Amino acid sequence: MKTIITIGREFGSGGHEIGFRLAEELGIPFYDKLLVSMVAEEGEFAEKYLEEMDEKVGIHIAPFLATRSNYSVYNQPISDKVFFRQAEIIRKLAEDGACVIVGRCADYILEKNENLLRVFLYGDLKDRVARKEAMNLEIEESDMTKHVLNTDKKRARYYRHYTGRIWGARENYDLCLNTSVISIEESVKLLRELVLNREKTLG
Amino acid sequence: MKTIITIGREFGSGGHEIGFRLAEELGIPFYDKLLVSMVAEEGEFAEKYLEEMDEKVGIHIAPFLATRSNYSVYNQPISDKVFFRQAEIIRKLAEDGACVIVGRCADYILEKNENLLRVFLYGDLKDRVARKEAMNLEIEESDMTKHVLNTDKKRARYYRHYTGRIWGARENYDLCLNTSVISIEESVKLLRELVLNREKTLG
Repeated sequence: MKTIITIGREFGSGGHEIGFRLAEELGIPFYDKLLVSMVAEEGEFAEKYLEEMDEKVGIHIAPFLATRSNYSVYNQPISDKVFFRQAEIIRKLAEDGACVIVGRCADYILEKNENLLRVFLYGDLKDRVARKEAMNLEIEESDMTKHVLNTDKKRARYYRHYTGRIWGARENYDLCLNTSVISIEESVKLLRELVLNREKTLG
Repeated sequence: MKTIITIGREFGSGGHEIGFRLAEELGIPFYDKLLVSMVAEEGEFAEKYLEEMDEKVGIHIAPFLATRSNYSVYNQPISDKVFFRQAEIIRKLAEDGACVIVGRCADYILEKNENLLRVFLYGDLKDRVARKEAMNLEIEESDMTKHVLNTDKKRARYYRHYTGRIWGARENYDLCLNTSVISIEESVKLLRELVLNREKTLG
């Protein structure tokens, strides 16, 4: 198995679940927030900081971080350092073979890879809010719509900052699925069959 | 079989072929330019005119048509009259059951239909130009890129004019496929299996 599947996703569209189940059914590794821990394990950054800045750009955290000793010695915002470290890890993982990577601009980082399948998942706002509400996040229900929209905004900003491209614009992806209409089960099945069919054809 | 599949497509992305083969494999009717003939058969408009204005908006043809006797008695641009007549026909066809409809804002016209699957096909410009060149259209090869871009522009204008929406924007579709990466064969297979699976689940 060779296919590297990257999944970009609107918040609440089921990207994590679809990616996880797809990886499981294909028997290949799944990387999501785990990548954050992999950067943390290298020392330098505490995992707690990294989680706070996961898929956010420097502008939000630099003022806070600039006062700390772990601000880059090269005067590079810490978010950039983490991004480039994470990008190196993503490239290494892709060299190891097939996997599913959710978020983190992996579609852009790996775009030269010939076995790449770039997926983007999206959905109606009300469905995405409902999915997150059902997950019992520690957020007031009335704020969930705001939380969903804000998270999308942060992801869009992060993606634009590191790729110069528009997050979710179809030309950056090979396949875009509306999970308000194509269910999680259908999405997993569809992607699994596409990948298995490609592997057979590509040999 | 109940599913109505609408296909929006960038020029040269293989939309006609994918739609035709999908309809054939599912054993359901396929409507593309045929809809134009169906409007023509009702009398009033000559097929030649209709073909010229197919998926174009009034602004381009009204000055020419305004001098002719078949300009709407209600002072409505003929392109609008044709659009609304075509929309009626599309709604009737959808009532008859499963089918594939390419273009003509069918995704918008039928959006209240609960068995709708709205597909958008796109691809890299160079691949779309190459596909059209291979089809031996009567266009100078050097002009093909311009022709492809112009046709896309006309489709976008037509779609915006009649739907108020952005042509090709993912939120207007359930599934978007990049045929530069997902081949015509793969696209047909993927869509066929998705539809067959839905029909089984929906009962």
